[in-house]
Amino acid sequence: MTVRSRFFTEAEGQAVGVENAAAKGDVLLVCEHASATIPEKIGTLGLSQEVLSSHAAWDPGALAVARLLSQSLDATLVHQRFSRLVYDCNRPPESPSAMPVKSEIYDIPGNFDLSEAERFARTSALYVPFHDRVSEIIAERQAAGRRVVVVTIHSFTPVYHGKFREVQIGILHDTDSRLADAMLSDAEGSALTVRRNDPYGPEDGVTHTLRLHALSDGLLNVMIEIRNDLVANEQDQSAIAGFLNELMGKALSSIDE
Amino acid sequence: MTVRSRFFTEAEGQAVGVENAAAKGDVLLVCEHASATIPEKIGTLGLSQEVLSSHAAWDPGALAVARLLSQSLDATLVHQRFSRLVYDCNRPPESPSAMPVKSEIYDIPGNFDLSEAERFARTSALYVPFHDRVSEIIAERQAAGRRVVVVTIHSFTPVYHGKFREVQIGILHDTDSRLADAMLSDAEGSALTVRRNDPYGPEDGVTHTLRLHALSDGLLNVMIEIRNDLVANEQDQSAIAGFLNELMGKALSSIDE
Repeated sequence: MTVRSRFFTEAEGQAVGVENAAAKGDVLLVCEHASATIPEKIGTLGLSQEVLSSHAAWDPGALAVARLLSQSLDATLVHQRFSRLVYDCNRPPESPSAMPVKSEIYDIPGNFDLSEAERFARTSALYVPFHDRVSEIIAERQAAGRRVVVVTIHSFTPVYHGKFREVQIGILHDTDSRLADAMLSDAEGSALTVRRNDPYGPEDGVTHTLRLHALSDGLLNVMIEIRNDLVANEQDQSAIAGFLNELMGKALSSIDE
Repeated sequence: MTVRSRFFTEAEGQAVGVENAAAKGDVLLVCEHASATIPEKIGTLGLSQEVLSSHAAWDPGALAVARLLSQSLDATLVHQRFSRLVYDCNRPPESPSAMPVKSEIYDIPGNFDLSEAERFARTSALYVPFHDRVSEIIAERQAAGRRVVVVTIHSFTPVYHGKFREVQIGILHDTDSRLADAMLSDAEGSALTVRRNDPYGPEDGVTHTLRLHALSDGLLNVMIEIRNDLVANEQDQSAIAGFLNELMGKALSSIDE
């Protein structure tokens, strides 16, 4: 048994969730912060149940919206089945945020002074198989002559360090802004407050997945950030997914690659 | 095909070499810098053939000595089949030396400004499977109630930054010095110059493999550094392997775990 297989209990299975694997659409949805689950082996990281179920541990609503988009866009969805507090799959192992010692206002005691063995176990069990799987799906599609569009789905907290955020939907990009530009242009006049690289941008290190899988290969890509109070229940999740489905469909059909 | 399988050509195979897998001895030999081979996908890293075959790329003689010890100690040997200039398996991904931009006096142009995708590919193809394999072997033996002793085999250049090194055999350890202490004590009076944590020590970050696999589990461990002018031909390699075999055998039988 390898480190990664010993990391999880039998019931937990493994790190990567893949849904709608046989999808025919161009979009590949990625949800790195889909889950608040902490593997049994890790325990509570010294945190209260309140923190462990808060946005510090995951992006509430992101997986639900990603699943709806997976259906409406006929898109394969790859999601991480464990909390970013254990390993944040949108960060490379050399980033201090990969296994964070602090998240907004909370210290993460279980991540203080991690041994090299513990860092290796998490990197090997959570990060590598996740991106290996995304990479594998992209390579298979490219080999079959299919177009691949990488879209990552995130949510953010309305109040951060005590300040309210006005932006409702963030359209984030790194050096390739083709898809983001088209979506932002189509979103003009929308009732929702849609902004470019807000509340985060590439300078915050949030475009790791885009850099890994899209920028290196020239694939269309975008990162979507949804304010989590807009996706707190099923009805609202449906509304936001519908909005994004429309926006993305329009943008993609307008881009002539 | 995962990133790691696409990283190598079919002829190259994969990163990890395992020899004497069914060995009955307690020692597990690890040779992280066994090879100067650069994967085809990587090219020359902008280096001359001279540098690519120098100690910058590998530890000359280390694999040869490790193979002799593998026979005499009846020890399984795990070795890296590609150069440390691509990924140094004795360094974690967060270390700048993992994919070094400089090695002693040489710049490594092919490692300047590596993309996150390239860093991921190397980590995933070279580092993770290597230590996963070591970890797997240790876990299997522990499950079978066997004792495991982790011994890493390295060589160093006699002249470093223009200065000659007097030490001939370095016995290196981190916080657990049990095996190193016993070996150093047995080496007293030897014709060879054997020294503790010389020419490197844990402060140089060279005990990563020991930390990963031995310190975390309380396994006896040591890192052996051989001055490479002493293992430049088969006869000398035999002599040094004989010396180390004797030293390690004596030390191990004297330690009452």
